[in-house]
Amino acid sequence: MLFSQLIFTPEKSAPANATTINHKLLTQAGFVRQVMAGVYVYTPLGLRVLRKISDIVRKEMEGMGSSEILMSALSPKSNWQVTGAWDSVDVLFKLNSQTNKEYALGFSHEEVVVPLLKEVISSYRDLPKSVYQIQWKFRDELRAKSGILRGREFLMKDMYSFHATHEDFEDYYGKAKEVYLKTFERLGLDAKVTEASGGSFSEKISYEFMVLTDAGEDDILYCPDCGYCVNTEIATQGLTEGSECPKCKKTKMVGAKASEAGNIFDLGTAKSAPFGLTYVDGKNAEREIYMGCYGIGISRAMGIIVEKHADDKGIVWPENVAPFQYHLIALGEDEAILKKASEVYEKLIGQGKEVLFDERRNLSAGAKFAAADLIGCPNRLVISPKTGIEQIELKKRGSNDSRLIEINRLSL
Amino acid sequence: MLFSQLIFTPEKSAPANATTINHKLLTQAGFVRQVMAGVYVYTPLGLRVLRKISDIVRKEMEGMGSSEILMSALSPKSNWQVTGAWDSVDVLFKLNSQTNKEYALGFSHEEVVVPLLKEVISSYRDLPKSVYQIQWKFRDELRAKSGILRGREFLMKDMYSFHATHEDFEDYYGKAKEVYLKTFERLGLDAKVTEASGGSFSEKISYEFMVLTDAGEDDILYCPDCGYCVNTEIATQGLTEGSECPKCKKTKMVGAKASEAGNIFDLGTAKSAPFGLTYVDGKNAEREIYMGCYGIGISRAMGIIVEKHADDKGIVWPENVAPFQYHLIALGEDEAILKKASEVYEKLIGQGKEVLFDERRNLSAGAKFAAADLIGCPNRLVISPKTGIEQIELKKRGSNDSRLIEINRLSL
Repeated sequence: MLFSQLIFTPEKSAPANATTINHKLLTQAGFVRQVMAGVYVYTPLGLRVLRKISDIVRKEMEGMGSSEILMSALSPKSNWQVTGAWDSVDVLFKLNSQTNKEYALGFSHEEVVVPLLKEVISSYRDLPKSVYQIQWKFRDELRAKSGILRGREFLMKDMYSFHATHEDFEDYYGKAKEVYLKTFERLGLDAKVTEASGGSFSEKISYEFMVLTDAGEDDILYCPDCGYCVNTEIATQGLTEGSECPKCKKTKMVGAKASEAGNIFDLGTAKSAPFGLTYVDGKNAEREIYMGCYGIGISRAMGIIVEKHADDKGIVWPENVAPFQYHLIALGEDEAILKKASEVYEKLIGQGKEVLFDERRNLSAGAKFAAADLIGCPNRLVISPKTGIEQIELKKRGSNDSRLIEINRLSL
Repeated sequence: MLFSQLIFTPEKSAPANATTINHKLLTQAGFVRQVMAGVYVYTPLGLRVLRKISDIVRKEMEGMGSSEILMSALSPKSNWQVTGAWDSVDVLFKLNSQTNKEYALGFSHEEVVVPLLKEVISSYRDLPKSVYQIQWKFRDELRAKSGILRGREFLMKDMYSFHATHEDFEDYYGKAKEVYLKTFERLGLDAKVTEASGGSFSEKISYEFMVLTDAGEDDILYCPDCGYCVNTEIATQGLTEGSECPKCKKTKMVGAKASEAGNIFDLGTAKSAPFGLTYVDGKNAEREIYMGCYGIGISRAMGIIVEKHADDKGIVWPENVAPFQYHLIALGEDEAILKKASEVYEKLIGQGKEVLFDERRNLSAGAKFAAADLIGCPNRLVISPKTGIEQIELKKRGSNDSRLIEINRLSL
């Protein structure tokens, strides 16, 4: 992509109301623009990162045998009355129509997915089933803050699984825990599996995938030795920072701020039973269906990645989620240099590489380097009067070392 | 994809409340499920078609030099008060928050895109600019009907262009008209450029891209000779069916029902002026900015395609937008046949083909063929005791001819 097509290019400073790293850097570098607290526009740069994260998550869910669908944001009030969520969930946005019908805007999709799957599940032969979607969610948050970490409108992957027995659910739940850790690793995030309450979803213990960051809203206690981790919300029996780890009993628990990148819930029959979603077993008996739900905040993950991968010059994207692999810069006004830079750009594009080409004229090397550092692509390529037209300089973002490459042999 | 992963498979009959071809076939074949009138879930099959259409539209917009962004569905009341749309647009969904703030759900995005672009446009050097998005829209329709043709929640591509002069706008507008016709052709739709009113967007004449279909909601008059076409809403001077064409004056105008697949609007300064979006020209004078907006209904296009490409057995997808290029069927219970079918599936996938593999056991040939006809992939491949394990039968959807291909030479 040409730099001029970005529309939103790096600015001199971060917005005054930004207090977190992700809000500051994502806005200043041109990945997002705030529409109102908790609601953002994604620019061409930001949209690329959202897609990279979505694609990684999508592949992992497909690997779990889940099928992608897309549920609606709107759904009728009646769905939410069945489970009582219409009256009990504070963050549920409610809409009134011209015809005086009431609708909900999905903050999660249990109330849509259960009646939906009821159409195709009736016998034990129809189980297990797993569906997921990557869809925008709406939550009427009292305080939306921390950039894209806590939004009123945010992108989420939510998966729902349906099982004939609790054992079958447990198998899938265990597999999901492993897949989640692998997914976050691919996103460049070191997530801790944390015991937490089921919140409005379930009475049971759920697992949150917590990433340590001061911008996070959760307080956790973790054992640096065995890895046991618990949300302080449910920490019992006087468990606090400095307590002995209740699991390994070897080390003292450490307290930290963290942000929840994902979660998995044992829903039991809490959502299936109210809708009468059951199945008939091999002996013609009606049985309850056990459900799990599994969330990953796609836009929040983008924010957490920036919290974890940044320095004083800007973002340092992990290779997997970077908007472009290469940031190509042409310096000076020498036509031969500029022509060669265009050739290199076309050549890399032809090789299937993702390249952002800063082709702007009459701009200092300092300004172009600062933009590249802010945007944070993993590899910076520079062609200038200093390199000449036969070589190009490659520098990794976050490293001070650079090396010269023969352009003729350029196959990165 | 394996048939068993579809989750929603072809049903014996269409839903009782479905009156249009797209509603009947898309539901019966398993592409969509209705949540409420005008609101649908897209299944794995349906989502594939939405993506195919989106990708074709995206490529054409990129070809016009437009940059993809993603705006929020939510935006603050204040944006909509600036243009008066808060009080004047009936179909605008309005939300109240816990903190007693009011928000709008985007039915179109002029009120978001103008303040957004104001951040990056100040000088003539910043013009022209064009951005687009593919985003779900919400409209509080009094009557949502005709399957996915008229929705309360629907997927749309909306592009916005910003120009220093009306001439520059006219150039881009003219180019858009050509690109739109090419886009619809790639989608398998024969669209007529139709003169229409600007509706709530503009006082000026706009152009609608109309596809003739009885399921459509618009009435148009067109000249079969020169192609002149006008929405009856704005047909003047006694122009009716049977009138002489006012353009070529050779033929009589024909009346028809049509569905609007896209539209382009000359917004003039109607949206830029209220937000004070202006630019400074080369002589330091402040100037008005001319805007255009350009819509394509992605989900509606999917519905129109089905209205136009179907027979009594089901959907006949044009190749470009089909969920899969190949529908592979294994017949009988012979293990050698079934094993060979799996090999063919893997081979085609390895060649980068998109294949739906009906691997279901204990099902009649008739049931599998009926499912293939309903779903409507362009090429049906059958391996059965009749073909043996060395040949496979290829039949085009919508044709009765079939031919045998040597499996060893299979490279479709």
